[in-house]
Amino acid sequence: MKIRSDTAKASILRVLNESGKPLGASHIVSALLSMGVDLQPRTVRHYLLKLDGLGYTKLVSRRSGREITERGREEVSRTDAMARMGIVSAKVDSLGYKMSFDLRDGKGTVIVNTSLVDPGDFSLAIKEMQLVVERGFSVGGMIAVAQGGTRLGNIVIPEDEMCIGTVCSVTLNGIFQKEGIPVVSRFGGLLEIKDRKPVRFVNMIEYRGSTLDPMEVFIRADMTRVRNAVLRGSGIVCASFREVPSAAVEQIRHVEKVMKVHGLGGILAIGRPSQPLFDVPVSEGYSGLVVLGGLNPIAAVREAGIRVSMQSLSGLLDFSRLVPVQKCLKRNMNDQTTAHW
Amino acid sequence: MKIRSDTAKASILRVLNESGKPLGASHIVSALLSMGVDLQPRTVRHYLLKLDGLGYTKLVSRRSGREITERGREEVSRTDAMARMGIVSAKVDSLGYKMSFDLRDGKGTVIVNTSLVDPGDFSLAIKEMQLVVERGFSVGGMIAVAQGGTRLGNIVIPEDEMCIGTVCSVTLNGIFQKEGIPVVSRFGGLLEIKDRKPVRFVNMIEYRGSTLDPMEVFIRADMTRVRNAVLRGSGIVCASFREVPSAAVEQIRHVEKVMKVHGLGGILAIGRPSQPLFDVPVSEGYSGLVVLGGLNPIAAVREAGIRVSMQSLSGLLDFSRLVPVQKCLKRNMNDQTTAHW
Repeated sequence: MKIRSDTAKASILRVLNESGKPLGASHIVSALLSMGVDLQPRTVRHYLLKLDGLGYTKLVSRRSGREITERGREEVSRTDAMARMGIVSAKVDSLGYKMSFDLRDGKGTVIVNTSLVDPGDFSLAIKEMQLVVERGFSVGGMIAVAQGGTRLGNIVIPEDEMCIGTVCSVTLNGIFQKEGIPVVSRFGGLLEIKDRKPVRFVNMIEYRGSTLDPMEVFIRADMTRVRNAVLRGSGIVCASFREVPSAAVEQIRHVEKVMKVHGLGGILAIGRPSQPLFDVPVSEGYSGLVVLGGLNPIAAVREAGIRVSMQSLSGLLDFSRLVPVQKCLKRNMNDQTTAHW
Repeated sequence: MKIRSDTAKASILRVLNESGKPLGASHIVSALLSMGVDLQPRTVRHYLLKLDGLGYTKLVSRRSGREITERGREEVSRTDAMARMGIVSAKVDSLGYKMSFDLRDGKGTVIVNTSLVDPGDFSLAIKEMQLVVERGFSVGGMIAVAQGGTRLGNIVIPEDEMCIGTVCSVTLNGIFQKEGIPVVSRFGGLLEIKDRKPVRFVNMIEYRGSTLDPMEVFIRADMTRVRNAVLRGSGIVCASFREVPSAAVEQIRHVEKVMKVHGLGGILAIGRPSQPLFDVPVSEGYSGLVVLGGLNPIAAVREAGIRVSMQSLSGLLDFSRLVPVQKCLKRNMNDQTTAHW
């Protein structure tokens, strides 16, 4: 099959983007093959030179090969929206499959969202997040922090920013799937909270009909009222609607308890077999599962007027990099004290 | 069939919301019936008293009946997101059917989006909009303006705001349908513009999978770059993807010419029969139709740092209320001059 030149280039960029490290042409060839794109090493080298010329890739060394540039990353994120249609469900499933967190020993990788804040706003941001965690509107209470110039998973933090990693709610899919429980992600929505109780979904976007993570869009469009929910008991938070086999509900309750031991959470409600949950009908034999948005603490930070740029589903992170949000502030203050000496 | 009390109340609110004027119980009963909700007048009166108590409705006079309050409107917009799932496609089809604009004499109603700005920002906003219109990124060049305290269609303008009505791109569906051309709305997207040419969709949300108008969400989430597209020739604008029968394409070209006579436009591209348009595949026998977002001029206003609150698909407006955007500024300046005397 003849492969169009722009398809080939886009595929090479995607391989380099997902590897997170430099790759030589031969590695790229085999990665392409596993994507169903069959190209000769000679052809790949030819396209790599073209991509270099466009500023999308650059040679790191003859030994380690090429890596993708920032510009290349931007290109990947824009290429071929149609192929990315429903990317959220695809990315959700693929990350859930790749993560390695083991419930038994609390080791392995989880899926995180990353958010950048100004170092001067960091303490304030953490305080906002802590309130959201304490009120139970987050996916547990563990977060990761990284200084500018360092890395968090695959993400390189810009020099003048601080990065906060929060556990993405898709981590729950991964945990369930490892226990043999299949999960279908239906939609991301805005859930109304009244008198500290969830009432109903006021808006929703289906995962399969969108190239964007619905939660991220809701937050960026200033449609959340997480702070109100936290401070006054009434507001609007992000939550997603999923379906699980009703037969697995008992096991999910058990898994939930073990998750709590590791500081993970986020399950807001589980429906009765084949019955609507918050007026949302489910398939026969399935139960609705409403999971809080992993970005709710970040939404509160934004609502508090703190500038924050976020990226949902940004990748996998070793769970050992996460600490309880309460300890985070103390630890960071100690760091700063040390820095002042 | 027994009707649940909250379903009944929600339906009554919806009837009052859509009528745009006060209604007596007997009118409400027949409107409910046409929605498939069969309630006795006595029962409707009972629920109206409850709705009064909640502050969602109020009695205007015994003769004219009750109207919905602002609080009632908010309630309607939140009620039962599941029933509203895909509301955008439903609303699109229903407004397209209701509008009465006649291509031959340029009379009748069109579908508008409404936006509120501070009167002090009005001239600046119009200047921004004019540039977008001149560059051809809007749905033609006609807009409506209304002062605070007056009405634009069904919308009552708050005292301290000015309202700008822009032609919604769904108006084109209505025009085509009146010519016997069926239109299927697929998704709202962000279209990349490079060197003044449309290149590709970089993001999209399907109409049937969302309770929100995708365009409005994109703009509120600050994902557009309409000003860049206007000023530098490269940027990101709102556009929607629709499908029309390929057999109707010639007729659409003709309709487009007549529309231009009336100051209407917005068609960016029509695809070849059964062929992808901007890499988006279409059904066999259909052609893709890309229409610019009616809110693009408002997106530019927002990008210019002017505070603007918008509502897409806000209703029908008589076309005689619209004027070319160029005349609007002069007319308004004259108004102000008069006011100063």
